Amino acid sequence: MRYSSGAVEALIEEFAKLPGIGRKTAQRLTMHVLHERRSEVEKLASALIDVKEKVIRCSVCQNITDLGVDPCHICTSAGRDRSVICVVESPTEVLAFEKTGHYKGLYHVLHGVISPLDGVGPDDIKVRELIARIGVDSTGGVREVVLALNPTVEGETTSLYISKLLKPLGINVTRIARGIPVGAELEFIDEATLSRAMEGRSAI
Amino acid sequence: MRYSSGAVEALIEEFAKLPGIGRKTAQRLTMHVLHERRSEVEKLASALIDVKEKVIRCSVCQNITDLGVDPCHICTSAGRDRSVICVVESPTEVLAFEKTGHYKGLYHVLHGVISPLDGVGPDDIKVRELIARIGVDSTGGVREVVLALNPTVEGETTSLYISKLLKPLGINVTRIARGIPVGAELEFIDEATLSRAMEGRSAI
Repeated sequence: MRYSSGAVEALIEEFAKLPGIGRKTAQRLTMHVLHERRSEVEKLASALIDVKEKVIRCSVCQNITDLGVDPCHICTSAGRDRSVICVVESPTEVLAFEKTGHYKGLYHVLHGVISPLDGVGPDDIKVRELIARIGVDSTGGVREVVLALNPTVEGETTSLYISKLLKPLGINVTRIARGIPVGAELEFIDEATLSRAMEGRSAI
Repeated sequence: MRYSSGAVEALIEEFAKLPGIGRKTAQRLTMHVLHERRSEVEKLASALIDVKEKVIRCSVCQNITDLGVDPCHICTSAGRDRSVICVVESPTEVLAFEKTGHYKGLYHVLHGVISPLDGVGPDDIKVRELIARIGVDSTGGVREVVLALNPTVEGETTSLYISKLLKPLGINVTRIARGIPVGAELEFIDEATLSRAMEGRSAI
């Protein structure tokens, strides 16, 4: 069944293509757009186009940045520790680490992990760029690479692959700790996490 | 904390303004847009603008329709029973009735219900247009007006108000049945619905 307006129906269909948005939600969003001021809707439409037009990848860390801001502001910041690179899967994780306000090093975004089942090999992600970047800085720049990939099979495989490539270069390769999340109850933590937490115990 | 791209941050903010979309979902949608083909994103952007540019209200039933299709295709359809008008609150309800494929009459969309607490009076919704429409057709056109407003206090008030206006015109005013939804279990039905269901019992 279709709405009495083709334009409305078209917008519902476009909204419903977005991830996690079903037809009911798409209808609700469309009704909202119908009642919203035109200027607000235009802002959303142009923000959409802007993202496709203006967002590029930083030539150093591969994180997303705006056209004209390359290298990105993290790579050019004077306040960052240039001897540490944190390797993450996607820009979202950069944001997650930045939110902590704790980490002061640089980043490298792989834009994926090695996943043979999905046909993603080492050349499909930004591993080569990482090696090249460390090669350039090998005059003593980068001292440590922290692998912060998701604790999945693919993430682990990618971590292993990168560490094997980097160790011959004399780089200190580490990975973020696996253990009990803050606020969790031990009773409900799975066995694998508990074992990792026990392995990774430290003096207090 | 902000993303390293202003364009990305702007889109997240715009998405987060939509109803039911929080910041996390807005981030996820933005990441999707970032990876989506440009042509697809442009389709969404232009569908948004189209809705603001092309959608108008049918001058007869007040339902939404496209520019150039006024009266709307339901109002002009030769296959509809022109003697019955179903009064609903919004275009979404027209769609709901159309989906049933059962109702063959016309519609009238009020675009709201009388709600003194929200400052919505009879003149803020399309009641006058309904009366005018029936007046025009009073040569014997409209025989019945079915009130299909939501069973809220505001909906009931509006139903009462409209029925008082229409009865002097010699129009048969009805309301859709309140009772047990199909598939429900009597045990879990609230008292008010059960009483209405009992009141509205019919011979089988």
